[in-house]
Formats: sequence, structure tokens, C-alpha cells
Amino acid sequence: MTGPDPAVAAVRSAVRSACADVPAGALVLVACSGGADSLALAAAAGWLAAPGGRGRAPWRAGAVVVDHGLQTGSAQVAAAAGAACTSLGLDPVVVVAVDAAGGRGGPEAAARDARLAALDEAAGSLGAAAVLLGHTLDDQAEQVLLGLARGSGARSLAGMPARRGALRRPLLGLPRTTTRAACAALGLRPWEDPTNADPAFTRSRVRSRVLPALEAELGPGVAGALARTADQLREDAEVLEELAARLLDRSQPAGGATGDGLDAAVLAAAPAALRRRALRAAAVDAGAPAGELTREHVLALDALVVAWRGQGPVPLPGRVGAQRTCGRLRFAPAPPPPGGH
Amino acid sequence: MTGPDPAVAAVRSAVRSACADVPAGALVLVACSGGADSLALAAAAGWLAAPGGRGRAPWRAGAVVVDHGLQTGSAQVAAAAGAACTSLGLDPVVVVAVDAAGGRGGPEAAARDARLAALDEAAGSLGAAAVLLGHTLDDQAEQVLLGLARGSGARSLAGMPARRGALRRPLLGLPRTTTRAACAALGLRPWEDPTNADPAFTRSRVRSRVLPALEAELGPGVAGALARTADQLREDAEVLEELAARLLDRSQPAGGATGDGLDAAVLAAAPAALRRRALRAAAVDAGAPAGELTREHVLALDALVVAWRGQGPVPLPGRVGAQRTCGRLRFAPAPPPPGGH
Repeated sequence: MTGPDPAVAAVRSAVRSACADVPAGALVLVACSGGADSLALAAAAGWLAAPGGRGRAPWRAGAVVVDHGLQTGSAQVAAAAGAACTSLGLDPVVVVAVDAAGGRGGPEAAARDARLAALDEAAGSLGAAAVLLGHTLDDQAEQVLLGLARGSGARSLAGMPARRGALRRPLLGLPRTTTRAACAALGLRPWEDPTNADPAFTRSRVRSRVLPALEAELGPGVAGALARTADQLREDAEVLEELAARLLDRSQPAGGATGDGLDAAVLAAAPAALRRRALRAAAVDAGAPAGELTREHVLALDALVVAWRGQGPVPLPGRVGAQRTCGRLRFAPAPPPPGGH
Repeated sequence: MTGPDPAVAAVRSAVRSACADVPAGALVLVACSGGADSLALAAAAGWLAAPGGRGRAPWRAGAVVVDHGLQTGSAQVAAAAGAACTSLGLDPVVVVAVDAAGGRGGPEAAARDARLAALDEAAGSLGAAAVLLGHTLDDQAEQVLLGLARGSGARSLAGMPARRGALRRPLLGLPRTTTRAACAALGLRPWEDPTNADPAFTRSRVRSRVLPALEAELGPGVAGALARTADQLREDAEVLEELAARLLDRSQPAGGATGDGLDAAVLAAAPAALRRRALRAAAVDAGAPAGELTREHVLALDALVVAWRGQGPVPLPGRVGAQRTCGRLRFAPAPPPPGGH
């Protein structure tokens, strides 16, 4: 008797350990697009949870397929993915159609937001204990490169977490070659998403051109190095954000009104990394859109704290301004433009 | 009367603000290779410090040229760079020959180490208050990409600091195109280092192939984004390393011998980012070479702290091992291989 194919075993082992804490009888939902990553994930979850099978997981496995409706034939793709999940032994299998068009931040962000909302809703209505996503090591590396290009610090480089709320990503440690090999070994025919090869999408350019260029010049370990970097930066960001939140609390008057502002001396005594994170958080609290606040904005706020020479208010996105008076930093709606009385 | 070329003005302004705190009469040394970056730097420093000139900097400007002796004709290149510095009004100008061959970590690292040592010595013997290096925004971006490929976390992505000890890097905010434009505007003919185009060097592949590929696919702002990321990660690393050092202190018995080990309960109560940094520092203190300690080693140490199930000693590079007994983590020389009594 031979064991399973190594790629199949690797995916099963990753899913088993990601779900080690799921209680007996609880439902684990696989988010399946029909692509190689999530199909391999669905096969592993179905095998592990098969009643009386050798997987012996105590939980039940189901699937949710999201139809974004963005491509012609997307309903057929979704139906085929659902049928594949059913044949892999998952139950229940639900297919959800969403409207991903017209969201904020471009088509990629809109599709992602709509998908996450649909997964959340399906998990709620089915009472699932966990929802598994098929992101791999390569997806993580691509995420880090996309973050690098934005240049917005540790948070944007920190990639995707292995867990957040009910969402879990068991395959973040496995390369995409493993999920493809697992599908091949199991005789599964994954769907090839045409947008993965469409250079109109930044992510597909990162996948098809940027990562290969990095691997060609710097060595084949680049994807793994990027993913390890993301792991470490995520740990770092957690500590730093927690400490910055405490600093912000300390800089605000106990029980005082928000309009009392932040104590510049308290902020000035803190290290730059915490002070600047606290200032950014305060600006967002005051109404500046997080996505529009640049490093330059934060450095201008920081100068009010540590390079004070009587400078005027700092204008921020979202018609918010920050001003220092009597040693306190106050955020307020920016004054109307001249003549706009 | 028109002002100077914008590129010339930008370099002068960067040098002026980087040296704003240099006392009157003190010597500022420019480290000049004769390449565009350091030649533009030397020209700016010479102009700013010219006695009776319009630059009006209170300090004196000199130059040090390091001849690595690694290429045929390097002595001529160094002599020409020195002559250029003299004609730009810098005084004193010293040319130092170093032996960069045979150092640790490959030819690039050996050349860098030898150069830094020579600059340090020249600064000491001339009594210089600051040594200016010509690294630009592009050099910083290349540094971040090299660090990414190593995958060793925030520290390796944090790039080069604007200041460390006497060293200052006034041009980290300017792209290489500005230093080239400044040289052209001033009629200076920079030396083109042939190793910059030699694909045998990782850095030259990053410069000539990786960064251009990233800019082509992700947009022209990538170098700036990488440099901003480095700035933020450097701030983060400072805070995290300070906090990890304090955690390590707290986990050691007050006044106890080093052999008493680390208190696992104290470490376990800390967030992962601090705990893992503290464990890495303890392993290095115990003799494990920092450059050989991987994330996997650190995670194995961490498992002794937070996933304790009676596992055996963790072997580390440098023939060091770590073991947990009675709630304490102890580092010791690894046992000799079997039969090696």
C-alpha cells in the first residue's frame, strides 16, 4: 500500500493543522472558485472530513462558491465549481451570486470586497466555524510586492494573515506548484481564471512578470523570502499598533472632550515609529481617509510635535486640518477656501 | 541673473540641510569615488563651504578617495577623482589605498567593509566632524530589494540610515537622475564604474534588471516607494529592538549567572515580535553567528517557549544548542557528534 501523492499529502496536512482547533461537528466552509488552489483545498477538506474515512477530522466540510458575475460565463464556472465540491464529498455546497461592479478602489478591490462580504454572510447563515481560503505562498509574495510598490510601510508589506476572524488560509506556506500537483494527482481539472493572465490587472503583471524577473535575477527562493518577510512584518505591526494606540490614549486628557486635543509633550517623548503611527491614527479618527494619508502628511503632523517653530495648520485629506496651540495638537475641519463665506 | 540648474540646487540644498548642525570651522569630508553621485556631492560641498562664496556654510569641505585596488587602473581613477575634488575647491583631499580582497562575505561586502574602515580612519586622522556618502534614493531602493530577497525581516529591509556615527548620506532623498543632471550642468565628467554594469554582481543585476522590471510593471514611483518603506521600517526596527532588549533583560535572573537561562514564562507573556527578537539576540549572545540564524531556527526556539511539549534540544548554527528545563531556556555548546568522545 502506498501513501498519497506528496502534494496531496502536503495540502491535507496543512488543512488538518489549520483546523486542529475546530470543534467536533462544527462546519468548515471552503471558499472555492474552481481554480487549482481552492480545488486542492476542497479536495483535502472533503477527504479529511469524510464520515468513516481515513481523514478522521471531527468537523464537517462544506463549500461556498462566489459568482462575481464579472465575466461572461461566470455562472457556469461557479456551477461547475459547486458540482466539483459536491463530488468531493462537501456538503452543504452553496453558490452565491454577488454584484462586484462599481465598488471603490478599482475592479480588483471591488471583487475582493464583494467576495469577502458574501463569504461572511454564507458563514453566518450556515453557522460555519471557519471559512478556508486557498491563498498560497505565491499569492502572499505577490501581495508583498504590491504593497512594496505602494510604499506605505510595514502594514502594507505584511501580506495576508493566516487567520482573521472566521477566515483561515491553510495554504500560505505552500507554493502554487503544490496545489497544481495535488489537482493533477487527484485527476481534478482546475478552472484557469483568464484574469490571472490579463496584463490589465496589476496583480497579474506581478504574477507573470515581476516575480519571475525577481526569481531570475535573485534566485528561486524569492517567493519564500517575501512570504517570510510578510510573517515577520505582521508580527511587528501588531506590537507597534498596540503600543501606538496606548500612546494615543496617554496623550489625550483623561475624560476630556476630543476637542481638547493631544498633548504634544507626551507624543514628543515617544519614539518616531510610535509617535507617527499615533498621529496617523488620530488623523483618521478626525476624518481623514486612511487611504489618502501619505507619509508626507504624517511627517508634517510630526513636525508640529517635534520640530515646532510656530508653523501654521497642516492641511490633510478629507478637509481636515491639524493645528498646534498651547502645546496641544487639535484636529478640526479645514477652514473654507478664501471668499467661501 | 538666473539661479543654478535645478539639479545642482537640489544637491546643494540636500547637503546644506544634512550638515546644518556642523559647527563653524569643523571639517566635512566627502567620500568621493569619482562617480556621478559622489562627484555631485563633492561639488555641492565645495560650493557651500567656499570661503567668501555664496554658499556661506560655516564648515570646511575636504575629500577622501578610497582606491580599492580591485580593478586595473584603479589608482588612476582614484587620482583623477582626487584631482576633481581639488579643482572643486575641497581641501584637504586624501587618496587612500586599501586591500579589499579576501574579506568575508564576497567581493561586494569586502569592498564595502574596507571602504568604511578607510573612511573611518581618514576621518579620525583629519579630525573630521562628518563624512558624507553619495548614496541616492536608487541605491536605497536597491538595498531594500536585496534585503527582500534574503527574507530576514524588517532589519534587512530597513536600508541605509541617513546618519550613523560620523557617516551621513545627504542624497538618500534624491534620484540618481538628479546627480547625473547636476554633473552635466556643472560640466563635470563622472567616472562610470564598470562593476555597476557587471551582471556577476547581485547589486548590478538589481540595478540594471530588477528595478527597471518593477518600474515597468508597477509604475515609475517604485524606487521612491521602496525608499519610503525603508525609512518607516528603520523607525520600527529601532523601537522593536529596544523593547526586545528590555524583554531579554527581564527574562534573565537579576544578578544571576548567564547559565541560569531565560525565564520561559516571562518570554511567553510577550508578543511574538518581541519574544522572537529576544530569542534571536540570546542565541547570538550564546555564540550562534547572526548571519546563519534563520527564521526556522528562531521559530524552533520560540516553540520551546510557547509550544512546550517536552521536546529535545534545538540545535543552532555555531555548535550552540538551546534546551528547556524547569521552565528555563538555556543555551550551551551542542553535544559532540555520536562517537566523538
